[in-house]
Amino acid sequence: MRMPEETNRRYRKNRIPEILNVAARLFREKGFSATSIQDIAQEIGIEKGAIYYWIKSKDDILYQLIENEGERFIQNVSKIIDEEISPDKKLEKFMKKHIDVLTENVDKASVFFNEHRSLPKKWKSKIIQFRDKYESILRKIIEEGQKEGKIRKDIDAKIIGFAILGMINWVFHWFSKSGRYSSSEIGDAFWEIIYSGIKKQD
Amino acid sequence: MRMPEETNRRYRKNRIPEILNVAARLFREKGFSATSIQDIAQEIGIEKGAIYYWIKSKDDILYQLIENEGERFIQNVSKIIDEEISPDKKLEKFMKKHIDVLTENVDKASVFFNEHRSLPKKWKSKIIQFRDKYESILRKIIEEGQKEGKIRKDIDAKIIGFAILGMINWVFHWFSKSGRYSSSEIGDAFWEIIYSGIKKQD
Repeated sequence: MRMPEETNRRYRKNRIPEILNVAARLFREKGFSATSIQDIAQEIGIEKGAIYYWIKSKDDILYQLIENEGERFIQNVSKIIDEEISPDKKLEKFMKKHIDVLTENVDKASVFFNEHRSLPKKWKSKIIQFRDKYESILRKIIEEGQKEGKIRKDIDAKIIGFAILGMINWVFHWFSKSGRYSSSEIGDAFWEIIYSGIKKQD
Repeated sequence: MRMPEETNRRYRKNRIPEILNVAARLFREKGFSATSIQDIAQEIGIEKGAIYYWIKSKDDILYQLIENEGERFIQNVSKIIDEEISPDKKLEKFMKKHIDVLTENVDKASVFFNEHRSLPKKWKSKIIQFRDKYESILRKIIEEGQKEGKIRKDIDAKIIGFAILGMINWVFHWFSKSGRYSSSEIGDAFWEIIYSGIKKQD
């Protein structure tokens, strides 16, 4: 049977970005396990079969979501470490860029932080490696700041790093694009609090 | 048929705390939807029927977990607001007690923060009310500090509140009882960072 023209067109339009966006929202709202491919298809308004034309499985959607998000985070900060600027400027950039990436799509950020547990083992370990790399970039910047006398030394770089990550990651729990604060207002305020808090105190 | 003495004894021992602890760990590791009553029973080493002797349903376990945790948080901080101490002392107590409650059982904290979405609607709204109340206690303390000139006024109390909540809530993601930092070390370091960051700056 020849495919009707309309169906053919529908299949040809790249549905992946839409599938990922809708899946991220549903995974966030209901959790990965409680969301079916059928739910995603229904929300987009296409047939279940059309989803499988673009992706292999629900695991595949989850992995793509988490990997893309991880890469966006890493790309955004990996250049900072080698820039010819002072460590406190690096830290400021790190925090603000992180908040920008995260607020662009809080559904995806939420899935990134909360659903890597649902990934098959081999993929999970890749994500953990990524997270370790990311945290080590942050820690390196803080240690550089401590060495250069810009950042206080009476608190471990590791615990300063956790304080910063908590503050900036938690944003996905409360940020809304229609909310009171823009991404850059949050970045400015958080940087102001953190910098006053961790700079070398008088 | 008369119940054998051994079975009888097994049924009589209050299994609820154990069920809640094991469920919290599994809900955290695999997610609420992906965990079955059978998984919980197997992990404890009892029969599925024995679980139903103590609890009505998986939803019931989740609600008990989240409600207990919420009450522990609220009880710990609700007295602080009326104490005869300065707002910065109140804030210090709030942060440190919050970290103590949370680190006591990070599985339960994780379920509290990530799985309220899985609750039936009527229960979910109760949890959201709780969260709003908790955040408003924190905000009130910060505003009091701003009014009394202890806390900087150039950053909104609301955003300072989010910064603090992020920092202290995120602890469940990385804290381990066998890890490098005790709850009180984290409390001291975080308070040091936050207080230096938000006190009235010179």
